[in-house]
Amino acid sequence: MPNESQIISRLKDLSRVDKQVLVGIGDDAAVVKSPDGSGERDLLACCDLMVEGVHFRSEWTPPRLLGARALAVNLSDIAAMGGVPRFAMVSVALPHKFSTEFIDEIFRGLFDLAEASGVSIIGGDTSSSPDSFFIDVSVIGECASGKAITRGGANIGDSIYVSGSLGASALGLALLEEGRRLGDGSDFQEALLKHLKPEPRLSLGRALGEAGLATAMIDISDGLSTDLWHLLDESKCGAVIHAGAIPIADCVRRYSASALTTDHLRLALNSGEEYELLFTARPENAARIERVSNALVVPITRIGEVVAGGELQIETGDGLEPLPPSGYEHVI
Amino acid sequence: MPNESQIISRLKDLSRVDKQVLVGIGDDAAVVKSPDGSGERDLLACCDLMVEGVHFRSEWTPPRLLGARALAVNLSDIAAMGGVPRFAMVSVALPHKFSTEFIDEIFRGLFDLAEASGVSIIGGDTSSSPDSFFIDVSVIGECASGKAITRGGANIGDSIYVSGSLGASALGLALLEEGRRLGDGSDFQEALLKHLKPEPRLSLGRALGEAGLATAMIDISDGLSTDLWHLLDESKCGAVIHAGAIPIADCVRRYSASALTTDHLRLALNSGEEYELLFTARPENAARIERVSNALVVPITRIGEVVAGGELQIETGDGLEPLPPSGYEHVI
Repeated sequence: MPNESQIISRLKDLSRVDKQVLVGIGDDAAVVKSPDGSGERDLLACCDLMVEGVHFRSEWTPPRLLGARALAVNLSDIAAMGGVPRFAMVSVALPHKFSTEFIDEIFRGLFDLAEASGVSIIGGDTSSSPDSFFIDVSVIGECASGKAITRGGANIGDSIYVSGSLGASALGLALLEEGRRLGDGSDFQEALLKHLKPEPRLSLGRALGEAGLATAMIDISDGLSTDLWHLLDESKCGAVIHAGAIPIADCVRRYSASALTTDHLRLALNSGEEYELLFTARPENAARIERVSNALVVPITRIGEVVAGGELQIETGDGLEPLPPSGYEHVI
Repeated sequence: MPNESQIISRLKDLSRVDKQVLVGIGDDAAVVKSPDGSGERDLLACCDLMVEGVHFRSEWTPPRLLGARALAVNLSDIAAMGGVPRFAMVSVALPHKFSTEFIDEIFRGLFDLAEASGVSIIGGDTSSSPDSFFIDVSVIGECASGKAITRGGANIGDSIYVSGSLGASALGLALLEEGRRLGDGSDFQEALLKHLKPEPRLSLGRALGEAGLATAMIDISDGLSTDLWHLLDESKCGAVIHAGAIPIADCVRRYSASALTTDHLRLALNSGEEYELLFTARPENAARIERVSNALVVPITRIGEVVAGGELQIETGDGLEPLPPSGYEHVI
């Protein structure tokens, strides 16, 4: 079976070019001209599929969080385009083992997050499933015409920023694999929560989009190292990031200190499903970005700069090293 | 586990009312105001999920037809709203048993139909699947503002029409279950094709929408009897249909004559996955509908009329009988 990037590459080959499609397959969301034709707003559209046994285990995840997560990852994609989500549809294939209460909790989580995010659930489809649980959510959003932030707009000299802190999601996953559970009284509940209940950076994405502050943006779903590679690849640039600047989640630092088994920098660089925003901006906008960070109370950290060439390097105390894409892959 | 209509009812309860949402969960497609705000066009959105072992068997269906079918059923939903499809996204969960060639054929079928229908594939998601194949397609379309044709607009005295002929899809399914296959040289290949390669009535749906000729419309996915019930339920009316007027597919008539085991009227009334359009129209528009039928070379048959009350009855040689919803359910 081909891997995901081979399939996406094949889909790109097959897709027709249409003048209504401004950004097609391969970014966080597609951007199309609104059929309305007045040209003031563009439409954004994306979908994300979660499969039991690949993306999650239903015995690890309270069903309410499962439903919320299926929507949250899409909201994060819209945020990464600098847009505002408006409508969502949800398709579920439900195994017979699920009780009515379990299914109801899934939907409640999804609808509660939709309500809190200003999103209307407008449709969907349901089916039984012979075995695994599948949930596919698609979201339609919008942004000012021509203002969507793609992965391809970074320029040499731009600063590289990341929101929040990194590593907690991977730590949370490792703890789940060890048998720890949300609410079981064990330490590091915030790591479990970061993994199980991602919080899309909707207000930050929207603010960066409306202010035109980000030159390129992506959300961290595969891990900083991999997603930065995606951004650089589309922008045809290289980058240097600074190990000392990477914002490592407090719980990761504490876990590293206690267990001494984990390289916390590596965890932060490769931790997937963080749903933080990774973006580039002109260096002269540093003060404006700081104001956005303060106004929204979202930490934003400058971690490096865009350079010429096609390499991604990390500067440590020992000098520059290549940083390969080593992010999270779904291989449960 | 709750059944599909219980789940849809629950989703309706949970969904928030938003003034941008003109038609929400429960029709063939949702209708929302375009974010563009000029108010000339409304957006249509729908999604349809197909699960291996529930909606199809991959050993019965050439992969190219499988891909086309996943899109076709959505195009039929947009047609049933009187709209025009524009953009599609596709999510697939692929079992390891599928070869690269098999997957490529699925996508080729889907992209070929998209191309032929003026639809751009703008995004999607892929995953491995632990077991079954799962494909979910969502489509965004458009129609003139306020002109979407819902299930709820039928009036007492309206005529009831159906496009094409009925019964072949159920016959095709029965033949597949008996071991017959497309291209195996057996008789009734057109029945197999009707089941495996549905042809959405895009130009008819669009024409009825643009001309404002249909008062209510639905596509026949669950069977004429069940889908007419859905339409009457939303329109709060009853209906009488005429057994002698039901357009039964030629292959069904021939099969019935040869095998003498099948009640061909019952097959036509209950055959699901026909993807013909079932609609109502004012009786004074009969001549205009005939002209549309002639211009598009699509048979359209008047099968009955909308009446007061909440009953659906069928008039046979023996008088009026109640017609229960006995359509196809996915219970493989």
